[in-house]
Amino acid sequence: MDKGHHHHDPGEFTRRMQTCGIPPRLQENMIRCTEFHTAPAPGVLIGAIMVDYALELLEATPEEKLFAVCETPKCLPDTLQVIAHSTTGNGRLTVLPIGKFAITVNRATDESSAEGVRVYVDGEKLKKFPVIDMWYANSPQYQKHTMGTSLQEEIFRAKREILSSERVRVPVTGKQKWKPVTCPSCGESVPDYLVVNGKCAACSSKTYYEKLR
Amino acid sequence: MDKGHHHHDPGEFTRRMQTCGIPPRLQENMIRCTEFHTAPAPGVLIGAIMVDYALELLEATPEEKLFAVCETPKCLPDTLQVIAHSTTGNGRLTVLPIGKFAITVNRATDESSAEGVRVYVDGEKLKKFPVIDMWYANSPQYQKHTMGTSLQEEIFRAKREILSSERVRVPVTGKQKWKPVTCPSCGESVPDYLVVNGKCAACSSKTYYEKLR
Repeated sequence: MDKGHHHHDPGEFTRRMQTCGIPPRLQENMIRCTEFHTAPAPGVLIGAIMVDYALELLEATPEEKLFAVCETPKCLPDTLQVIAHSTTGNGRLTVLPIGKFAITVNRATDESSAEGVRVYVDGEKLKKFPVIDMWYANSPQYQKHTMGTSLQEEIFRAKREILSSERVRVPVTGKQKWKPVTCPSCGESVPDYLVVNGKCAACSSKTYYEKLR
Repeated sequence: MDKGHHHHDPGEFTRRMQTCGIPPRLQENMIRCTEFHTAPAPGVLIGAIMVDYALELLEATPEEKLFAVCETPKCLPDTLQVIAHSTTGNGRLTVLPIGKFAITVNRATDESSAEGVRVYVDGEKLKKFPVIDMWYANSPQYQKHTMGTSLQEEIFRAKREILSSERVRVPVTGKQKWKPVTCPSCGESVPDYLVVNGKCAACSSKTYYEKLR
């Protein structure tokens, strides 16, 4: 979520990617992810490298119907959304609050489980990249305003060298069937499987907003 | 998530929007949301109208730093992500499993709460739009393969006529401070606030994948 440096200059950003040998397709993905995320956050740049690697290991293209799990809500989900088209709203992205910089990608299947690829930032491999290591550990020594550019360059130069991968099997869950139920408290309609104690979730627990006027 | 009709023809889709009097900016947003979502799902088209309306009520532009809550994980989150730049990965989108087609949008603030706008699909107003009403209620009478085009046209013609809005106040939560903790089970690093029973969330509960080979 951190911008990693103060001012984002798209021209300078592109030249930095080129100087550091980022291949053209990955450059384009990094630019698209940065625009979507509204900042070239380090996690977004690493994420773009991770998704690119995961698709290659899976021998998949972004045009295929892909499902993804993201083990952190920070930055990474946006790269799966932009590059692999597994989005929060199309039901093909699951975000788990595990707190690891790790993703799993698999193809759609009619089976009850699917073979997929898990790609993660490998703590051991980070030791060769001191600025990424400091940023990743949330070290107080990492100063984003002065070290943002070094961090970006180190990420661009490292590419997949900070990543490891494994083949995994993940369960496949189908679409949930539902019927509408009218909440007796607010009178609005919600799917039956979201009813809590006979009411909609907003009425049964504290709602997140207060009405004005 | 449903496509609403079988084959998506972008040219026909654009002509349909024009015929039904969708303003140019909203047409562009619907096309961008459809591409991101990978289908012109009815919920995405309604969502694009909702976000457009919410920003107008808030007198906000997509260039501002906006926060959003979405009361369903289906379709709508993608319209907030694409149009308002409140994304899953940049921390400005909260998806709540309430099951209502409703969104709340507010500006960034240093205060502990913010005034925002809640826009929702109004069940009463749907009665004037029989195909949307059928689709929205998940009625078995709605047949997406034969009624998808009628549904799309009804959504385009209805525009904001199916929506209601209210001014609301929402709590503002700051960024969570954290330190890395090494999980004694897998040896990987996770933020301290995600530790469960002394282990990382993946090791303390059942993990979502099985390693292969």
